[in-house]
Amino acid sequence: MTLLSTIKNGIDLKKIPREQLPALAREIRERIIAVVSKRGGHLASSLGVVELTLAIHYVFDIPGDSLVWDVGHQAYAHKLLTGRDAHFDTLRTYKGISGFTKRSESPCDAFTVGHSSTSISAGLGIAVGKKLKKNRSKVISVIGDGSMTAGLAYEGLNQAGDSDSDLIVILNDNDMSISPNVGALSSFLSRTLSANYLQNMKKDFGSFLKKLPGIGYDIYQFAKKSENSFKTFVTPGMLFEAFDFDYFGPINGHRLNHLIDIMENIKMLEEPVLLHVTTTKGKGYSPAEKNPVYFHGVGAFDVTTGNGNSSGKKNPVPTYTEIFGKTITKLAEKNEHIVAVTAAMPEGTGLIGFSKKFPDRFFDVGIAEQHAVTFAAGMASQGMKPVVAIYSTFMQRAYDQILHDVCIDSHHVVFALDRGGIVGEDGPTHHGLFDFAFLRNIPNMTIMAPKDEQELAAMLVAAIQHNGPIAVRYPRGKGVGAVSPDSPDYLLIDNPIKIGKAEIIHKRSTTTRKTNAEIVTQKVTAPRKTDTEIVSQEVTSLEKTSDNKLFSNAAETGKNILIIAAGRTVQEGIKAVEELEKMGISPTLVNARFIKPLDAELILELAKEIPLIITVEEHVLDGGFGSAVLELLADNDATGCRVKRIGVKNRFVEHGSQDILRSEYEVDARAIVRAAKQLTEQIAL
Amino acid sequence: MTLLSTIKNGIDLKKIPREQLPALAREIRERIIAVVSKRGGHLASSLGVVELTLAIHYVFDIPGDSLVWDVGHQAYAHKLLTGRDAHFDTLRTYKGISGFTKRSESPCDAFTVGHSSTSISAGLGIAVGKKLKKNRSKVISVIGDGSMTAGLAYEGLNQAGDSDSDLIVILNDNDMSISPNVGALSSFLSRTLSANYLQNMKKDFGSFLKKLPGIGYDIYQFAKKSENSFKTFVTPGMLFEAFDFDYFGPINGHRLNHLIDIMENIKMLEEPVLLHVTTTKGKGYSPAEKNPVYFHGVGAFDVTTGNGNSSGKKNPVPTYTEIFGKTITKLAEKNEHIVAVTAAMPEGTGLIGFSKKFPDRFFDVGIAEQHAVTFAAGMASQGMKPVVAIYSTFMQRAYDQILHDVCIDSHHVVFALDRGGIVGEDGPTHHGLFDFAFLRNIPNMTIMAPKDEQELAAMLVAAIQHNGPIAVRYPRGKGVGAVSPDSPDYLLIDNPIKIGKAEIIHKRSTTTRKTNAEIVTQKVTAPRKTDTEIVSQEVTSLEKTSDNKLFSNAAETGKNILIIAAGRTVQEGIKAVEELEKMGISPTLVNARFIKPLDAELILELAKEIPLIITVEEHVLDGGFGSAVLELLADNDATGCRVKRIGVKNRFVEHGSQDILRSEYEVDARAIVRAAKQLTEQIAL
Repeated sequence: MTLLSTIKNGIDLKKIPREQLPALAREIRERIIAVVSKRGGHLASSLGVVELTLAIHYVFDIPGDSLVWDVGHQAYAHKLLTGRDAHFDTLRTYKGISGFTKRSESPCDAFTVGHSSTSISAGLGIAVGKKLKKNRSKVISVIGDGSMTAGLAYEGLNQAGDSDSDLIVILNDNDMSISPNVGALSSFLSRTLSANYLQNMKKDFGSFLKKLPGIGYDIYQFAKKSENSFKTFVTPGMLFEAFDFDYFGPINGHRLNHLIDIMENIKMLEEPVLLHVTTTKGKGYSPAEKNPVYFHGVGAFDVTTGNGNSSGKKNPVPTYTEIFGKTITKLAEKNEHIVAVTAAMPEGTGLIGFSKKFPDRFFDVGIAEQHAVTFAAGMASQGMKPVVAIYSTFMQRAYDQILHDVCIDSHHVVFALDRGGIVGEDGPTHHGLFDFAFLRNIPNMTIMAPKDEQELAAMLVAAIQHNGPIAVRYPRGKGVGAVSPDSPDYLLIDNPIKIGKAEIIHKRSTTTRKTNAEIVTQKVTAPRKTDTEIVSQEVTSLEKTSDNKLFSNAAETGKNILIIAAGRTVQEGIKAVEELEKMGISPTLVNARFIKPLDAELILELAKEIPLIITVEEHVLDGGFGSAVLELLADNDATGCRVKRIGVKNRFVEHGSQDILRSEYEVDARAIVRAAKQLTEQIAL
Repeated sequence: MTLLSTIKNGIDLKKIPREQLPALAREIRERIIAVVSKRGGHLASSLGVVELTLAIHYVFDIPGDSLVWDVGHQAYAHKLLTGRDAHFDTLRTYKGISGFTKRSESPCDAFTVGHSSTSISAGLGIAVGKKLKKNRSKVISVIGDGSMTAGLAYEGLNQAGDSDSDLIVILNDNDMSISPNVGALSSFLSRTLSANYLQNMKKDFGSFLKKLPGIGYDIYQFAKKSENSFKTFVTPGMLFEAFDFDYFGPINGHRLNHLIDIMENIKMLEEPVLLHVTTTKGKGYSPAEKNPVYFHGVGAFDVTTGNGNSSGKKNPVPTYTEIFGKTITKLAEKNEHIVAVTAAMPEGTGLIGFSKKFPDRFFDVGIAEQHAVTFAAGMASQGMKPVVAIYSTFMQRAYDQILHDVCIDSHHVVFALDRGGIVGEDGPTHHGLFDFAFLRNIPNMTIMAPKDEQELAAMLVAAIQHNGPIAVRYPRGKGVGAVSPDSPDYLLIDNPIKIGKAEIIHKRSTTTRKTNAEIVTQKVTAPRKTDTEIVSQEVTSLEKTSDNKLFSNAAETGKNILIIAAGRTVQEGIKAVEELEKMGISPTLVNARFIKPLDAELILELAKEIPLIITVEEHVLDGGFGSAVLELLADNDATGCRVKRIGVKNRFVEHGSQDILRSEYEVDARAIVRAAKQLTEQIAL
């Protein structure tokens, strides 16, 4: 029987003598490694905070005391210690344990998280709420140094220090966000007081004091003139103290006894406290310690070697991300104005190659989406062509900057929205299901979504040729095999996409375009219940209602359906077309390519011919692509059309594999087929 | 001839000898006061930077060197010095000079601004762009200390310091944003080295050095134990130096010679420089110096007294803002869980009264919309009922926090979106024209918009009673006189709004419901070309196409029109109804009240009866309220409806009075009348 299996909560944990805690830490690491090696997940960050987690639960009473994990992906040990060990192997699977903290999963998860840098703000809100309720329990926010690069964290810090609230912020400093940290703050946080440093400081201060001519001396002048500048004297502690936090640290985040002792002390304080803890990402699993970037968010892997399970197979189908990175790099070779900006995601966005090839034209700004966009607008104002590559879900944080700093002046900034649509295992905080809607309402914005990875490349070409704000939204994961990543000619520079032009993927076959008369004739000559017969039956019933224009249209065109799909749902459309044709329904499939502007000409022309329309998008339905089609039809008085919109009904999508979610949330080929049947059956009634 | 009139640009300015600059400063102040007293505008901040502006233009070559004003509302002197003196009296009027910096207005405006805290990011982008183009001209960003409370500024600072860019940031420190500043940073920035302080520091350091036991001594322990804590030793200079900026200051921002000298020096540096300048808001105009909050953004006023022009008249119609503030305060008296959050706008949002009555339940978090929302979510998780009052345009900055931190867990946070719709003179950066769209796509969100100020109060009651995220969006300016602010019973607690229920304002009069036969008869008996005749003519032509269901519907119902209006456009609807009835069109007017969820039952029922529909909203059309109505109709197979959406066509709205803009951008009663005529005429064709 393991130690871990005896623990359901903090009370159980506190029964374990301190000296056994290291053994428990080992068990927790083994359990995390075993499950993540099968399910994938955020390994390195979770391994880094095992001791920290144990110490917090040992000292504080969770959930009475509230524990807020920033981002929440490092909380695997926390989950194991709070009654979720038994189900932990369902990690990140549909209906299983979430990869992030989630209030609906456990009262021990004080805040639902996924995006970075919310923990100080949320923790402060909880602390203030408790104070107003005269509840004297504690609030602990654990935030990584990477998350500290975001403005939101700074805003929280600014109010927290001022508010004199009873809030403990634990700065988990591993010198990494997902990638190694960037920005002035990063080098600042790692500033430690070395022996040499102290000696020099002593000397400096000595001469400083000697030189002090009295009260009028300007200390800033000294600071600038001193060889060993004063700026290196400001330590993280002093920074946080300046923000009115009581600062402790930095302490080694893997020394359990030390951690517990200091937390016992801190618990007594009733003011804003910052505990600076240094940890090692991937601690205790040597492949992860060696390569924390790879093991930040990892797929299934072999525990012994640390190698990814699929890495043996060399799957030739590239991801959209890879195609993006390669295409932009190729384009940048020919156009020196192209610069790339990312927010702490050089690997995730596929820009590592670009960053190596064009280090002067590559900008990783840290977890700072707002700044990334406004910074890009500034560069664009100088004639650069900035490509801002940020996951769709994180781009939400820059909505105002896109609108206010880029679009009002129509700056030529290219937004590469990776992970658009359903992203899978990361769940509700990470799906890119809102981008069409939040971008579409902004004037001057153009929005594209490619049907496959080859079209992504072509759209990037068009985006660079365009002049004005333009977004390309593409899905997480592998392409459809439209192009080999090694093929030198996948980048169809000669065949760029035309702005605002859609593409017909499939035309209804003319053989099924029969007049009523013909079909009725067939019925007579073909007594077997065939597809044709079904069609004719329905057409016959249609005739009864032919005084209605819509219905008579439908009758003219038989069982024609117009499917207008955006982005990767074109692939679902292609599958649906096959099915529908077997069922005697004759679909026309359009790849919209542009969410904005829509190809008004093509869509209106087709809608006139085929008034039964299905729109498809991997996006919420409210204000999305289908909604744009409805607007187009209404504005052009295309009454008489019947439109079914396929997409995610206004709700958050849980975590699970992309395939399962697409099926459960009805954004797949089957949903299109169902809608087509419904539409044609309604007509038949 | 004034000095000012001889200056069209920086070259002209540089011809003026230094000793004449104070006289020029006086002229500029007089001009600004004269124009703003007539046009209204941002007086106090513009008066505060007259010398700073002169010094910048005296030392740098604008526009060759790029000057970025944060927010841009303090740039009146800059406008006067860059060729806009002659037209300056058109300030903030339609087609006149903008109240903010604007690239399309002058090449001297390096960046278009309105929202706070973008200047470091934009300036850095410009500097990097110049560097890549091997352009060695300078970039100067001027940012207020208030703007420094926003996370975006911090994100910019973090990258700028790290990037070693040639960027000059001028911190214009007046210890104010709009209101006095809040947050730890604020007290930190004002930390000056007094005589006493230096003496104490000297003593402290003496004992510190004596106590130093050598290299192992923990400096942090010292910091915590020292009576005169180390934290007070960290000065703004050291903070910015820690961020790898070269820091100069603080210097008096009204001493022109000193300013020019230091700028001449700074100009030589090629690294991130921060110049800390202290200024007085309203400088040179004593009413504004005394009351900088009032004179931050002010309407027309009397120059001699400083009194607002309208303040004598005591207009009894309150603003929406006032009603909001009073209602929330009243509600808070009865419900101790209500807390209020604002982002540096206690006056602007009407919460001053609340803040005085409930200081423990009021939180001004600084210019930190992101934090405001996540902080509110934290409080809501503890059972508080946070009301987050932020202007619609600034709420854009918290889109991700609304979605991710509030709506995923469906926390009960009330969003009070003041200044929704067209705000008037502040122009494109400030109109609240996107909120329906960016809120509507978020699951779990409820959105209301009141037709008048009394309904605003009722909606706030409903919002507090509700459980979940809920937004109330209301316009800038005075109500319609629906309630007297002194009336004790304007707050209809007993008659709250029902979630998701619309209201019929006007039913088509049954007298105009005539059969075709009747109308035709009238035609015969009334030979004069009356409204009735026109109706009958059209009805006659309708009969020709009566094989169409829609048209036959229309014919059945005569010239019925269904107007569904959101928020204050209901008032436009009421005016339009009057006009339309005169024209023989019979309108039904619905006050939607809810943008989400729509009152599906009522709308569908009415649409069935009256298929000619006009939706009205003061909002962009893309993804807005009308779009939601189209979605509802499509999802319920209400084909055959013809819908005209009235709202702002996807473009940014310029500045000017609300009335002019509502007319120019076609969101007024006349636009409704036009649309109704069009719809009925189309039917007649």
